[in-house]
Amino acid sequence: VNQNLSSADHAPALSFKSDNITGASPEVISAIVAASAGQASPYGTDDLTARVERKLGDIFEREVGVFLVPTGTAANAISLGSMTPPWGSIFCHPDSHINNDECGAPEFYSNGAKLVAVGGPSAKMDVEKLRSLARVKVGDVHAVQPSCASISQATETGSIYSLDEIRAIGDVCRSSSIRLHMDGSRFANALVTLGCTPAEMTWKAGVDALSFGATKNGVVAAEAIVLFDTSLSKELAFRRKRGAHLFSKMRLLSSQMDAYLKDDLWLRNARQANLMATRLSNGFAGLDGVETFGATEANIVFCRLPSLMIEALLNAGFQFYYDRWEPNVVRFVTSFATTERDVDHLLSHMRLATAGAAV
Amino acid sequence: VNQNLSSADHAPALSFKSDNITGASPEVISAIVAASAGQASPYGTDDLTARVERKLGDIFEREVGVFLVPTGTAANAISLGSMTPPWGSIFCHPDSHINNDECGAPEFYSNGAKLVAVGGPSAKMDVEKLRSLARVKVGDVHAVQPSCASISQATETGSIYSLDEIRAIGDVCRSSSIRLHMDGSRFANALVTLGCTPAEMTWKAGVDALSFGATKNGVVAAEAIVLFDTSLSKELAFRRKRGAHLFSKMRLLSSQMDAYLKDDLWLRNARQANLMATRLSNGFAGLDGVETFGATEANIVFCRLPSLMIEALLNAGFQFYYDRWEPNVVRFVTSFATTERDVDHLLSHMRLATAGAAV
Amino acid sequence: VNQNLSSADHAPALSFKSDNITGASPEVISAIVAASAGQASPYGTDDLTARVERKLGDIFEREVGVFLVPTGTAANAISLGSMTPPWGSIFCHPDSHINNDECGAPEFYSNGAKLVAVGGPSAKMDVEKLRSLARVKVGDVHAVQPSCASISQATETGSIYSLDEIRAIGDVCRSSSIRLHMDGSRFANALVTLGCTPAEMTWKAGVDALSFGATKNGVVAAEAIVLFDTSLSKELAFRRKRGAHLFSKMRLLSSQMDAYLKDDLWLRNARQANLMATRLSNGFAGLDGVETFGATEANIVFCRLPSLMIEALLNAGFQFYYDRWEPNVVRFVTSFATTERDVDHLLSHMRLATAGAAV
Amino acid sequence: VNQNLSSADHAPALSFKSDNITGASPEVISAIVAASAGQASPYGTDDLTARVERKLGDIFEREVGVFLVPTGTAANAISLGSMTPPWGSIFCHPDSHINNDECGAPEFYSNGAKLVAVGGPSAKMDVEKLRSLARVKVGDVHAVQPSCASISQATETGSIYSLDEIRAIGDVCRSSSIRLHMDGSRFANALVTLGCTPAEMTWKAGVDALSFGATKNGVVAAEAIVLFDTSLSKELAFRRKRGAHLFSKMRLLSSQMDAYLKDDLWLRNARQANLMATRLSNGFAGLDGVETFGATEANIVFCRLPSLMIEALLNAGFQFYYDRWEPNVVRFVTSFATTERDVDHLLSHMRLATAGAAV
Repeated sequence: VNQNLSSADHAPALSFKSDNITGASPEVISAIVAASAGQASPYGTDDLTARVERKLGDIFEREVGVFLVPTGTAANAISLGSMTPPWGSIFCHPDSHINNDECGAPEFYSNGAKLVAVGGPSAKMDVEKLRSLARVKVGDVHAVQPSCASISQATETGSIYSLDEIRAIGDVCRSSSIRLHMDGSRFANALVTLGCTPAEMTWKAGVDALSFGATKNGVVAAEAIVLFDTSLSKELAFRRKRGAHLFSKMRLLSSQMDAYLKDDLWLRNARQANLMATRLSNGFAGLDGVETFGATEANIVFCRLPSLMIEALLNAGFQFYYDRWEPNVVRFVTSFATTERDVDHLLSHMRLATAGAAV
Repeated sequence: VNQNLSSADHAPALSFKSDNITGASPEVISAIVAASAGQASPYGTDDLTARVERKLGDIFEREVGVFLVPTGTAANAISLGSMTPPWGSIFCHPDSHINNDECGAPEFYSNGAKLVAVGGPSAKMDVEKLRSLARVKVGDVHAVQPSCASISQATETGSIYSLDEIRAIGDVCRSSSIRLHMDGSRFANALVTLGCTPAEMTWKAGVDALSFGATKNGVVAAEAIVLFDTSLSKELAFRRKRGAHLFSKMRLLSSQMDAYLKDDLWLRNARQANLMATRLSNGFAGLDGVETFGATEANIVFCRLPSLMIEALLNAGFQFYYDRWEPNVVRFVTSFATTERDVDHLLSHMRLATAGAAV
Repeated sequence: VNQNLSSADHAPALSFKSDNITGASPEVISAIVAASAGQASPYGTDDLTARVERKLGDIFEREVGVFLVPTGTAANAISLGSMTPPWGSIFCHPDSHINNDECGAPEFYSNGAKLVAVGGPSAKMDVEKLRSLARVKVGDVHAVQPSCASISQATETGSIYSLDEIRAIGDVCRSSSIRLHMDGSRFANALVTLGCTPAEMTWKAGVDALSFGATKNGVVAAEAIVLFDTSLSKELAFRRKRGAHLFSKMRLLSSQMDAYLKDDLWLRNARQANLMATRLSNGFAGLDGVETFGATEANIVFCRLPSLMIEALLNAGFQFYYDRWEPNVVRFVTSFATTERDVDHLLSHMRLATAGAAV
Repeated sequence: VNQNLSSADHAPALSFKSDNITGASPEVISAIVAASAGQASPYGTDDLTARVERKLGDIFEREVGVFLVPTGTAANAISLGSMTPPWGSIFCHPDSHINNDECGAPEFYSNGAKLVAVGGPSAKMDVEKLRSLARVKVGDVHAVQPSCASISQATETGSIYSLDEIRAIGDVCRSSSIRLHMDGSRFANALVTLGCTPAEMTWKAGVDALSFGATKNGVVAAEAIVLFDTSLSKELAFRRKRGAHLFSKMRLLSSQMDAYLKDDLWLRNARQANLMATRLSNGFAGLDGVETFGATEANIVFCRLPSLMIEALLNAGFQFYYDRWEPNVVRFVTSFATTERDVDHLLSHMRLATAGAAV
């Protein structure tokens, strides 16, 4: 029985800081336990890893290159490193994780490529800006050369690119001869919202390489680099090892990923996380002084709260980021482990704070 | 009860290829399960990680910097990267893991430092050779600059530096103003053989940074960089993150390490591995045509076997490396999970092969 | 007699594209010839190089570290590489040469540091923006760390930081514990305009390292990295050699620099260049349809010309950049070699085109 | 008239330390002077550079990629950087310049490739050792991958690979799918000794890229990277610029190279240097206590001298390296600027010292 889901016998979870503060789904834990027994061939030559590779091929309906790594930053940086020369540029949104939160890992793994910011509303790259930047100074030896673009699906603010938006970016990349990477740290959250197939959201729309996230959605630490441009596979094997990300006991990663992909656990977990975010933002209606920003598309809710309410929630033990973006702006993140009880508990405290303020 | 140790109800383990083909100690698995429940602060700011740091401080009897990483290559490459400028040289034995088996990870993490081989018998660096090389071309702008040395304890062939040998190397390093790193992938195996304290085998002998291995000795995937020169700590935090080795759910690593260090599990496991190696090499006595190389100091046994015996063992399903170093030279590696029954099973097949050959 | 200055017996020079299309001052050529005779100690251990180092110390009124290199990009990239760790950020104006025109050389020499753009009018960094950015995420392991700032004096558009502006930036750098670099590709052009001492424009205002340009102002190919923070000197010697910029026959560089600094040639050359730019922009007055942008502070003049005039000038053989920034925007660059006759020749053609258009 | 060659009115040159202590041929100086006049298109788009490219194509009898750079280390490091991935190995002789004297520039420009030493007598790589090393661990993700080999022609000790020897190495490279680089810092010295064509000594024997040296043989500072595998050209342009080796006033380099290649100056200079070395070693015959090592094939002479003779020569003002390799071992290097009078002057002092010792 999972402690996360059997909320009845536990106090409600109080932190909405991030989806990386949760544990793992019970199926994943069981898989780790099972995989830790006995002898197995090392460095990814084991049966379990082969099964994961097959499963991902099935899910994406085509031949793929699969490279398991322990962190999302590794997935992003290693795959990007294979998609640009050191004198190339990587187009990304100014608010993207690779641009802000990876301590320059993409620069490190690419031996010094340049991240070039391409703005756009809702943390999504503006396709017209990308189109014009992707053509600038091509062939000019004085300038870094447009080499690839990276989009986050879902984005760092919880927004989601529509299939048309991805295809438009994919078209620009193809016509500019640059590659397209997708940071899918919250891939499942986006997928269940769009209701499309994994293939449609990736290679059919022009994506060449995907960081297929699992850590935020039910496993402890495991991500897969999924290559649709399999010409990159040979080089990627060396890049992963050289980056020190090749596990001798690969089963620790593959067991997690195997359980994650089994019986749609990954989709069920993402639906739960998204549903709880929607329940939360729906609950804001009728709360005086609470302003929501944009639609709730994945598992992240941004809103503006009165200072007194923020204070009251903190005093009650709740955890969340606030005042980071603008004064009084708060971010709540739900996860596969968030329960209705957790959300309702938070909402009841918000209601209480409103009532208190009204007195 | 661990499947590995309860050999009674399992077939004997057949692979002696490496200590990385084993699973994990049951205590470690239980710790992972326990740690995977509920919410925890991310990126190593959790209580479990703090406890591991304290434990390692206790074990080494001093203030240390602790950085958990998932692979031994990461531990080596990240710590070495902080001990040399890009234009520096890293002295190491030609047979060392960093020189041969890490796909240039030390070069990558140091931004291009040069590994300079310093030979010596038994896979151990000759201290006099180190002494003379550490003084060559110091200050000469045309040459890479002596910056650090790295020794493996136990070495890649299973030999062990005595305390005197480490101290002598430490003295050379100090007098040449270069730093000393220890690749402790099999640290515990060496420690229990020497019967000294962890402090004596490291910083008291002049070691500045240690790759404290656990993966080969009872955990699934977890290593600790232990800094005795804590002036390197600040920079190491950035190097680890930039290398994409900072886990958001650090508890996966810290839970393993916590269990590994608890109740001397790490020492008990190492003793078992070493004991089984000794049992094996002792068993060679009286086997016609089996030639052993050197003393069995840790958990690795090198020997020369007749071709027919090698063939017979392979046919019986045993796994091990052979013909890699010289024709007919075989390497057997035992681990914490190796049982007397496993060893005796192997020996009986060797005896059988001898008898067969004798007929 | 210099072919460049004795314009009487030559056709007027037609290219105003850049100050890198000119040859060299006759004094510089003579110095190269003289230095190419006989034997000299290699790799910068010769007398001439020592003299250049002394001269720069005199000019800057203090102890300096001096490293001659052949290109401005080398001066910038090597010095910046010593002022930031790979996980650092380099603040610079979005229009700066290091950000746009060096093919990522600063990223290469810094092993992957991140250039962070700090906007501001007239190609000059806004000090308040710098102040806030220099404090963001300091100590946060997920973010690249503020490490240095780089300003261009004169800027890429020919504008000039006042002493107060440099000091304000220097203060921000010091209070944020980051270093300050000056790209002085057109150092002399700025200096003669400000009428201050070299010391005042650099270390007295907070500059730690300077790319002291000469190539655009009278030599063929020679620049000096001038370190005011001489703690960087030792490391810089290795960085220069490792970058393959240490000349065995250093006299080729030092002879140029020696002549450049002798009898104020560098200042005289810069004055001539600036004067010719002013003569040109003054000449625009009274030309119908010619719009000048900003004051002419150094040797670069930006203006907007009618399409027909651009066409007429091109047809007459003149060379200059246009339509690069905005339609009809033209850049004229003068140099030490530009003569009154060259400028007047250009102006007369502009006048002609105006007249033609007026008909 | 060249000061170097018109020895009559000068004291004999006393330094035999290296061929990098000389100045330049008068034809080269004149070319620099001529090229420094007037306006020219920057960054290698000028006519002179185009002419040099054509000339090198003619000399090598085929299409080549040509990239002028100022130092031999730049030529080596940039071309090697394009011939190996960061996880590759570069085979070279342990005594090679790239291995010992470039402060890790090849590692820097290749982003951390590994130089693997392949021994052999006379500073020449043993082809059988290369053959076996080039096949080791190919495809093994744990090992750096054989990527290219680099040979020096002439070598650092003045020996010369025969055409057969180069072809044998070329065959090994081709059959192992690795590229072959030639460090031709003393290319002309080797060529005139072998008496073959430049094509025969390079691409016809399997060389893919050449560092075509000129600095040691008559110019002040200019080398050419000559690519026979022209598929590397596009990338090399970016690598040169990113390394900060693209001169805006390229004419400084191209004028030197143009004069160097004109009227066989490069061959005449090399012949003079070699001849003077032979004159010197021939002169050793009959000198008591002087032991010569090997044949004199290029412009370097190694010998063993009595201590008293070394002392006497030093006292007389002569300069040379000694006691570096072994006690009493001396290296004399001649150059294009060495005259019969210089050599005879040295020999007479040696004779004097012998006589003195004999008394």
